[in-house]
Formats: sequence, structure tokens, C-alpha cells
Amino acid sequence: MREKILKYGIIGRSGRMGQEIESVFSQAGHEAVLSSDLAGMECWGKPEVLMDFSSHAALAGTMELCRTHGAALVIGTTALGEEHLAALKTLGGETAVVQSFNFATGVNVLKMILRDYAPLLADWDMEIEETHHNKKKDAPSGTAIFLREAAGRDCPTHSLRLGGVPGDHAAHFANEGEVLSFTHRALSRTVFALGALRAALFAAGAEKGFYTFEDVLRGTR
Amino acid sequence: MREKILKYGIIGRSGRMGQEIESVFSQAGHEAVLSSDLAGMECWGKPEVLMDFSSHAALAGTMELCRTHGAALVIGTTALGEEHLAALKTLGGETAVVQSFNFATGVNVLKMILRDYAPLLADWDMEIEETHHNKKKDAPSGTAIFLREAAGRDCPTHSLRLGGVPGDHAAHFANEGEVLSFTHRALSRTVFALGALRAALFAAGAEKGFYTFEDVLRGTR
Amino acid sequence: MREKILKYGIIGRSGRMGQEIESVFSQAGHEAVLSSDLAGMECWGKPEVLMDFSSHAALAGTMELCRTHGAALVIGTTALGEEHLAALKTLGGETAVVQSFNFATGVNVLKMILRDYAPLLADWDMEIEETHHNKKKDAPSGTAIFLREAAGRDCPTHSLRLGGVPGDHAAHFANEGEVLSFTHRALSRTVFALGALRAALFAAGAEKGFYTFEDVLRGTR
Amino acid sequence: MREKILKYGIIGRSGRMGQEIESVFSQAGHEAVLSSDLAGMECWGKPEVLMDFSSHAALAGTMELCRTHGAALVIGTTALGEEHLAALKTLGGETAVVQSFNFATGVNVLKMILRDYAPLLADWDMEIEETHHNKKKDAPSGTAIFLREAAGRDCPTHSLRLGGVPGDHAAHFANEGEVLSFTHRALSRTVFALGALRAALFAAGAEKGFYTFEDVLRGTR
Repeated sequence: MREKILKYGIIGRSGRMGQEIESVFSQAGHEAVLSSDLAGMECWGKPEVLMDFSSHAALAGTMELCRTHGAALVIGTTALGEEHLAALKTLGGETAVVQSFNFATGVNVLKMILRDYAPLLADWDMEIEETHHNKKKDAPSGTAIFLREAAGRDCPTHSLRLGGVPGDHAAHFANEGEVLSFTHRALSRTVFALGALRAALFAAGAEKGFYTFEDVLRGTR
Repeated sequence: MREKILKYGIIGRSGRMGQEIESVFSQAGHEAVLSSDLAGMECWGKPEVLMDFSSHAALAGTMELCRTHGAALVIGTTALGEEHLAALKTLGGETAVVQSFNFATGVNVLKMILRDYAPLLADWDMEIEETHHNKKKDAPSGTAIFLREAAGRDCPTHSLRLGGVPGDHAAHFANEGEVLSFTHRALSRTVFALGALRAALFAAGAEKGFYTFEDVLRGTR
Repeated sequence: MREKILKYGIIGRSGRMGQEIESVFSQAGHEAVLSSDLAGMECWGKPEVLMDFSSHAALAGTMELCRTHGAALVIGTTALGEEHLAALKTLGGETAVVQSFNFATGVNVLKMILRDYAPLLADWDMEIEETHHNKKKDAPSGTAIFLREAAGRDCPTHSLRLGGVPGDHAAHFANEGEVLSFTHRALSRTVFALGALRAALFAAGAEKGFYTFEDVLRGTR
Repeated sequence: MREKILKYGIIGRSGRMGQEIESVFSQAGHEAVLSSDLAGMECWGKPEVLMDFSSHAALAGTMELCRTHGAALVIGTTALGEEHLAALKTLGGETAVVQSFNFATGVNVLKMILRDYAPLLADWDMEIEETHHNKKKDAPSGTAIFLREAAGRDCPTHSLRLGGVPGDHAAHFANEGEVLSFTHRALSRTVFALGALRAALFAAGAEKGFYTFEDVLRGTR
């Protein structure tokens, strides 16, 4: 049996992430029925789920659209404040809401592993390294910080800036006799859109509630 | 506060693993008070814990010594049968017994991670590779099989035989946009003796019971 | 001083490689003045160099265009026979011709290194591994064979097929005490178009002659 | 045909490197016939080659012994000054002398590769990283500096300090579409003694002259 065909809406369609989502979703056979942008909103069907990876300025409008259509929501907007998260949790009382700051499956799995297993390696040395393209200005990367926080300890963090590397992250642990390394490598920007699709399929079939990306990965509904 | 000084006994002291254990334990300041070998047994103190990484032929004698001295047991003998495990579980009703087929901390952590997280990556490709010195005759390595079984799925397994490499293992997962790799590297043979020491310190302080190396890592007592 | 602006022509413009070349060249500010395809040929300026990564069926026409315009040629068509190479060498008596079966700079550098240095490591073990996306049908990859031949010795070659990996290649050497590894990783398909651009800039400034990609890298003119 | 059996002498036999050399040479079947130390000198045969990895304070005595026995010399003493090198070159007019600051074959091969090929990658980003055990106090390692100087350009250099790692070095190059990495990993301290053995076999068969480790690798005699 093939996966179901989703009818979805996309907020911030003309943005970089909006375009990635549309490309990945349409390639997988899903159907856009709503599109919203600074230029305005178009709707030519009833969406089951809305995708919003735009700006917190769009949030109120997006939640209104969810209520109008009874649609679930996948929200990947960064820089959300406490008040936005509170509003999203309220919406979770009415429909399924998936919220995360990072939709790469592998990064989230790595975060969960570090959270669960770094404590067992508390007496090992730990260092993090991340490699990104030479256009990246901040260092260390947000994801490196995200992983270090998951491990629950501070450690030396090395940032390499090399050519066009989309993004590598490694956490190394070692004692006198062993080295244990966890490495994540993004192959391209489609990573995040693929994770968003996984979240959308989850949300469309889930009970109302406020979910994290870990819930999506665990298939908890 | 420094760790306590253990009084320990060692079965099969003249074997390779026996010598590694003695070297690592004495360097850490612990005190051998019993030594047993094909040549005979010497005892010059009361051991808190016995270390046996020898042969299943020694097992009955080792268990007898535990009972005589009220000592805990760390047993790393390979090729134990069901009847040996049953006898060890019975002994666990009287004292603390730690049993494992692999005492490298990192390998056991990796096993637990694969057991817990490979199911979340069920739709990713998975391949294992291991690299060992060119004297190693079997392929794939026992540890590669141990890790593959922990992941709960079959997958291509590559064996590289290169110079004097003590032992590398990697499990790679990938989908269209990401690669997630878990890599373990043994730096030397002391790995196993260091894990045995961790188990000994655990056993000396534990309630009676039958424990796995995972219990040691988790500090469950 | 900025690099000069090239006026170039492209044969097989609508093919995958033709499109990559046009995208990379235009982004670097170079100017297409001739375009040829199964659908026909258009010319709106005088090309300094022609790029042909299409089919050997196009070769005669391409060489004719070089002569008409006095243009240099960069030819990356695969599956050229002896007679094609002979014709290209003849053309090299009239203009600069760069011919290679692989235009990734790093792969060519790695080939040269293996050719020059593998003999110094003749008593080390050697193994090659390559990782590609799971759609790739042949194994080992052509590039793995190319590298193995450059090293001048046979060796075990491992092919991993994982998700969407564009293409990794590694050559490992080891003796009892050391491991030396050479690793190439393609980040995307633009690799080859970037190498083609380097060849085009070389050809446009070179004396007549028949050149390899190694000449381009060495800047021999 | 097996390699010839060397009769060798060892200066500074009781030092760490002296002991490594004796262990590796005797395991390979070579025969010590002279041993010198702070405690004095013993000689029970005629050495073909002397090994000196001790201190520059021993140098004059070592050179005297070479002249007495007509022996070749392999000298790995660090912190030699110009006057010591001048004296060694003079000795090279009488016998074969091999001098180097690093006797790991792989490190020397990597140095040669960087010297020869880094110029072809001048427009690529370059970064170096090295990983050593957490007891190592200096950073970056001397070998990292040695490799960076061979490449002939400055670059970011990252030092990881992890558990008991004997010593890893990597030089990474990348442009927009490719990453090329050269990695060296020491498996243990025997690396240097194995390189010294290679140098000794070379020296014993060479014409008089002053040689580098590169000459040894190239087999130039």
C-alpha cells in the first residue's frame, strides 16, 4: 500500500524553505491546495495540513487558517518566543501541531542519543566539531550548540569552514582505550524538507495535541 | 575523594587477558590478593571480587572461590553455555555477578544505541564496516555481528584488513539527504581490561544479583 | 585583477552536463555565444573555446566548428575510441585541445598522487572503498577503478550504497604502525562543471597542443 | 629471498626510543652487537650501522664509534643545531648517514605529497586538524606544523585532545564542489622504530653520503 496523498497548504511559499518543501512534496505526489505569501493568499482546495517555515510575523494568520480549515500544522519557524509557543500549545488543544527548530531526522536522532547516552560517558573526554561552507558567518553552528546542550556538558567545539560543505557535525568521546564518534552529514538542503514531509504525514493522521519532532520519529500519535 | 582500593583475585592470571587485567588494575592502585592458574592457586588476602576471563573449564572452581570468600564475580569468559549461565544466575542469588561477552564500554554503548535507535531509522539504508589488522582470519568480526544483531536488521557488512589496526567498527545509516554514522575505534587491547575494572568496581559495591555490562554502565545497583 | 570573461560555445546544451556547464559558467560571468543541440545550432558571437561533454556522434561537427571559429576545445565526452583520440590530437596541431574522462579537480589530483606515491607504499596493505547513492547500479565505480589503476596495483575494493551520497572515494594504506588515507568527496554534480571551467580558462590562453587535465592543473601552457 | 640480517649498535639503549628500536629490530631477526648508555658501552661484534635517537650530547661519541667500526649511521636525535648537522654532513663524506626529525614513513610521505600537490590546490580552502591523547601539552603538534610548512601556506589548525589517541593528523582541502582529505593515524609508538629499521636497512647498503628519510623512501642510494 502506498502512502496516502496529502492535501497541504504552504505559508511563505516563495521563500527558500517554502520552495524546497513544494519541490519535495510534489515529487512525492502530494497536492498543494493553499499557498500564502507576502503577495497574498490563494486557496483552491481544503488542506489537511499547513506547513509554515516562514516568520513569526505570519504565525497569527497561519493559526487562523488552521482553525478555518480544521487543518493540522507543522511549524518550523525559528526565533519563536514563549508567547508564540504558548499560542501553539493552545492550538494543540484543537488540532495536531508539530513544532521543532530542526527538521533533519538525523540531527534529531543524534540529539536524542546524546541526551540518553552522554551521561554514560561522563568520564570520557568529549569534543564537538562541525564543518560548513566558507560563506557561513556564525561559529559554532546552531546545531553544534543544540547537540552540546543535548549532551548536557560543555566541551571544546571546533568549527571548520571549507568550500561548499553543506554541514557536517561530529561528537567525539574517548577514554584511554577507545574512541566513540557520532557523525551527521547533510547531503543537501532537501534534508529539512524531507523531515517536514515526515512531520506532515504524522500530523495529518494524529490526534489533536502538541508534538515535537521526537514524537514524529517515535510515531507516537 | 579517590575511588576505593579493591582487593581482587584473578583467575587465569598468566593468560593474555589475565595479564592485561593485572597491569591495568595495579596501575590504578588496586591490590591483587588471590591468583589462580593451571599451575595452581595462591591466596594472600581476602578478595572482594574475582575476575575470570579464562575458560569455562575454570568456572566451577571460580564459583567455589566466590562462595568461600563471599566475593563478587566479574566473568568475561566466552563460549559459555546455557548451563554455565544458569549456574551463574544461581550464584547471583548469593553475591553480585557481572557477566558479559564484551567488556569494551564503547562497544556496549554502541550496542545499546543501535538497539534503541535503529528502529527509528528503519527506512534508511544501513551498512556496517569493520577494519582489523591483517592477521585476523575471521570476517566479519564477532563485534560486527554483535552490533548488527543489536540493530535488529540484516545489512551489507564490509571487512577491511589493514596493517596493525586494533579494531574499528562503523554503522552507517543514510537516506536521500543525510548520513548518520556511529564509529567505534579500539586504541589498544587495554580497552577490555579498563571495562573489566569498571565492572569490578561496580560489583564490589553492588547488592547480590546477576548483572549485565549495561547494568554496570547504567550504575544500576 | 579579475579573471578574463570567456566567450564560449556549448555543444549538447540541453543535456544534464550541458546545463551544469551553462549554469556554472554564467554564474562566473562568462558569456555563451554559441549553442548546439540535436535541435540545431545557434551562434551569436565568436567563441574562444567550445565545450563538448555530449556524445562521440557530435565530435566531427564540434571539430569543424573549432576550425571555423579558430576556437580552442574542451572535450569531456566519454566512450571515445582510438580514432576519436587520434582526430583530436590532429586538431591539437591547430588549436588548444583539453581532453579528459574526468573533470573533477580533486579526483585528478588524487590520481596523480596515487601514481606518484603508491610505489613508496608498496609493502603496505592497500584497500579502496567508495560510497554512492543507492540508485547507482555498477560497482565498483569507474572512478574507483581509475584510482586503482593509477596506484598500479590490485587491491580489495568495497562498494557502499547509501541513500543520496553523491560520491565518496577513499584509498587506505596501512602497515603495522600507521594508516594513511586519501579521501575524496563530491559535494554535488557541479564538481565536474567547475573543473570544465578551469579547463576552459586554461585552453583559451594556451598555445595549440593536445592537453590532459593534469596539464590544466599544472598550468603548463 | 629474505632481507639480510643486520648487525647493529644502539646508542641510548635504555631510553624509550632505544627500547622500541631494540624490540622491533630483534623481532625482525636483526642482531645487536653494540650497546651504549649513560652507564657505559658494551661491544660484542662489529656493527654495520649505529642507531642514535638519544641526545645531542652523545653525538660526538657516536660519530667516533662510526669511524672506529666503519659503520653507517641512522640519527633521529631531535634538537640538533647547525653545527651538529654540519658535523653529520662531514661524516657523510666517509660513510652513509641518514638524518631525520621524524621517522614515521606515513608522515614523511604525507609531507612530500603536501609539498608537491598543495600548490595545485592553492585556490581551495585548507585546514589542518590533529588529535592526540589528553596528556599532550603542546598544541598544535610539531607534526601539524611540519605538515603545514610542507604545504607552504598558513591555515587554521585544530587540536583535539581525546583520551589515549596516539596521534592523528589530517589536512583537508575543499572548493565549492569537492573535499580532498589526507589523513595519517599512528597506531602505536612502534611507528618510529619501524621507520628507523627501514632507514637502517637502507644505510647498511648505501654508498657514503648524507641522506634524508625521503631518500630512504625513494630507495635512492
